[in-house]
Amino acid sequence: MKILVQKFGGTSVATLECMRKVREKVADGLKRADKVVAVLSARAGDTNNLLDLAGQWSKDPDRAECDVLVSTGEQVSASLFAMLLKDGGIKARSLLGWQIPLITDAGFGRARVRSIDSDALRGFLEEYDVLVVAGFQGCTEDKRITTLGRGGSDTSAVALAAVLGSVECEIYTDVDGVYTTDPNICSSARKMDRIAYNEMLEMASMGAKVLHIRSVEFAQKYKVPVRVRSTFNDDPGTLVTQEDSSMEALLVSGIAYDRDQARVTLHGVPDVPGVAAAVFGPLSEKGVLVDMIVQNTSLDGLTDITFTISRKDLKSTLGIMAETASNIGAAEVVHDVNVAKVSAIGVGMRNHSGVAARAFAALTQEGINILMISTSEIKIAILIQEKYVELAVRILHDTFGLDWDVV
Amino acid sequence: MKILVQKFGGTSVATLECMRKVREKVADGLKRADKVVAVLSARAGDTNNLLDLAGQWSKDPDRAECDVLVSTGEQVSASLFAMLLKDGGIKARSLLGWQIPLITDAGFGRARVRSIDSDALRGFLEEYDVLVVAGFQGCTEDKRITTLGRGGSDTSAVALAAVLGSVECEIYTDVDGVYTTDPNICSSARKMDRIAYNEMLEMASMGAKVLHIRSVEFAQKYKVPVRVRSTFNDDPGTLVTQEDSSMEALLVSGIAYDRDQARVTLHGVPDVPGVAAAVFGPLSEKGVLVDMIVQNTSLDGLTDITFTISRKDLKSTLGIMAETASNIGAAEVVHDVNVAKVSAIGVGMRNHSGVAARAFAALTQEGINILMISTSEIKIAILIQEKYVELAVRILHDTFGLDWDVV
Repeated sequence: MKILVQKFGGTSVATLECMRKVREKVADGLKRADKVVAVLSARAGDTNNLLDLAGQWSKDPDRAECDVLVSTGEQVSASLFAMLLKDGGIKARSLLGWQIPLITDAGFGRARVRSIDSDALRGFLEEYDVLVVAGFQGCTEDKRITTLGRGGSDTSAVALAAVLGSVECEIYTDVDGVYTTDPNICSSARKMDRIAYNEMLEMASMGAKVLHIRSVEFAQKYKVPVRVRSTFNDDPGTLVTQEDSSMEALLVSGIAYDRDQARVTLHGVPDVPGVAAAVFGPLSEKGVLVDMIVQNTSLDGLTDITFTISRKDLKSTLGIMAETASNIGAAEVVHDVNVAKVSAIGVGMRNHSGVAARAFAALTQEGINILMISTSEIKIAILIQEKYVELAVRILHDTFGLDWDVV
Repeated sequence: MKILVQKFGGTSVATLECMRKVREKVADGLKRADKVVAVLSARAGDTNNLLDLAGQWSKDPDRAECDVLVSTGEQVSASLFAMLLKDGGIKARSLLGWQIPLITDAGFGRARVRSIDSDALRGFLEEYDVLVVAGFQGCTEDKRITTLGRGGSDTSAVALAAVLGSVECEIYTDVDGVYTTDPNICSSARKMDRIAYNEMLEMASMGAKVLHIRSVEFAQKYKVPVRVRSTFNDDPGTLVTQEDSSMEALLVSGIAYDRDQARVTLHGVPDVPGVAAAVFGPLSEKGVLVDMIVQNTSLDGLTDITFTISRKDLKSTLGIMAETASNIGAAEVVHDVNVAKVSAIGVGMRNHSGVAARAFAALTQEGINILMISTSEIKIAILIQEKYVELAVRILHDTFGLDWDVV
């Protein structure tokens, strides 16, 4: 039995008209496979409306009850779409997380998939041609509803594709695919035909919101080819898949950026063992994710520690740092929210040197000051003043020849 | 463990303010019992909005998918209320139909309760002080979501009270209790302290919408005392319970009415065996509920058959009757929608004669023409012209001395 998993995002199922387009995509899927598993997000806006409701009802809504509440969003879209398929003469039914079941841990609001009963799914597929699965949701072993966190429907789809051995997992959205950078700020941005999992992970973590980062990790782990494509046209989209030599020929695959950065610096920190733990331990305990970290060379036994965080965490971070600074005897804490991060990403960097130098030179030449640098095997991330973001993206896109397919 | 079941209707949970009142009622319930099972309806309007959505998506929405869709209404109210209870320091959790489980048959949209896992409920009650149960919903043995039909949350509550041995099943609504008749058309209508199940059934079937008819049948069958009371004051409400001698002392307990009546007459029907079956068989097949039926004495081998139906069924009924009339050789079919039914109801009628005669005399004296009559052991139903409804209700209410408690 050849099974195809197709996932449709919130904008793809927002209205009856949109859902009719989705039905065409599913009908097309049935021509390419024996059976289709269609994973749906909640209709655009529904999840936020439900979260707003929870926020009205409680300042600190119980997470388990919140999952019961927000999971209704996908329940609504899945049942409506199943009706529409049946109206179109397609044998279909909806399936909620607990009906499969898709078992998760008890991390309400950000649960992780533990197991999926693929035998049960295959049983349902004996009876139906299309299973409309409510994405984003699962349940614990003791039958409590969970959700997989923002973008969790992507993860649902990839996990289902993995256990069902789907040829590809098609992620339908309102864009054509993954672009070399944001087309809104760089008119020469180009849709990629293929991208490696690792590259996609870096793109996703930088705010290229086309795929949820966890779904990419999942796809990479289980080697599920993921195709990002549009519900509203027939473009083949972008295939997210394993690295191959053609990808490595390219130095840089994409340029990403992230405005959600705030920089915090502790000046005059005594350079003694354990000081980094004293700074970052309390942040980690409070759930603050630290992104870039730079520690300057010690001078006179004193050093500076600089790091970046999400802007929403700035207030709590400054509170924690005030205490930390006094504990460790740091001179002062300063911060800056007018910063942003641009990154060049590409698996080709592994085999080429000088990529970072080219990036720095290009930015410097245009008068953009580099505030912080962080590099990984396949990424160079550069913190700059926020006002230069668009310019920096275009410079790097141009520098690395992403305007045209050079392979 | 003393368990109290409390049910809260759609207007009681419509807003955050309302739900806070409901929380007070639950907290009060916890003073009177060890544990409370709170059964919630969907927030007022939610169910209709969901049904409207289904109607937009499909002209004939799949009933199973419709249940998946509309059951989200109670899922939303139950999870919101559980949050509110937890915020108020009450140990609580929501429970959906499938989580209990409350098992029903597969009659989607009008499912009947088959079993409730009361051991599981008692297990949950070890851990929580209040279980917030999503009313109206259950699931089949093979884990498909079902709903119990309009007013089904009342049935959920009574069924839970039955299996849990709840002292009373409290049905909270936006009225004080059950009235001797509609206070909107009879200012001397009086709230009853007690009413027998049988009487309540007749009142409910006549459109006294304070309790759903199936929940009363259920309560009668399992001898669950049901108390109808208001969320918005402290009135003890009306206890619906088994008949006792005090009830029988009263000739008539209440006056009900129903405007949703249409009268259809077949004239000149050959009075031969099987003619009634020929008339009512096809109606039954099409799901048309026939209320009153009168067949005149035969004259010259011809008779008239008159019956009443709900107005929404008139069009289909006339279609069916046109065919039937030609099949059985009836002369003509006439109809009238300007009719309504008034009823006097009371278990005391069993032991008293002359109740019907008093009713007819009172109406006739005021010039109200009696179109049809139907009597049962505890009810006299009279079809009149609709314009006389309010007047007839007041006359009967007065005739049987319902203005003041005469017991």
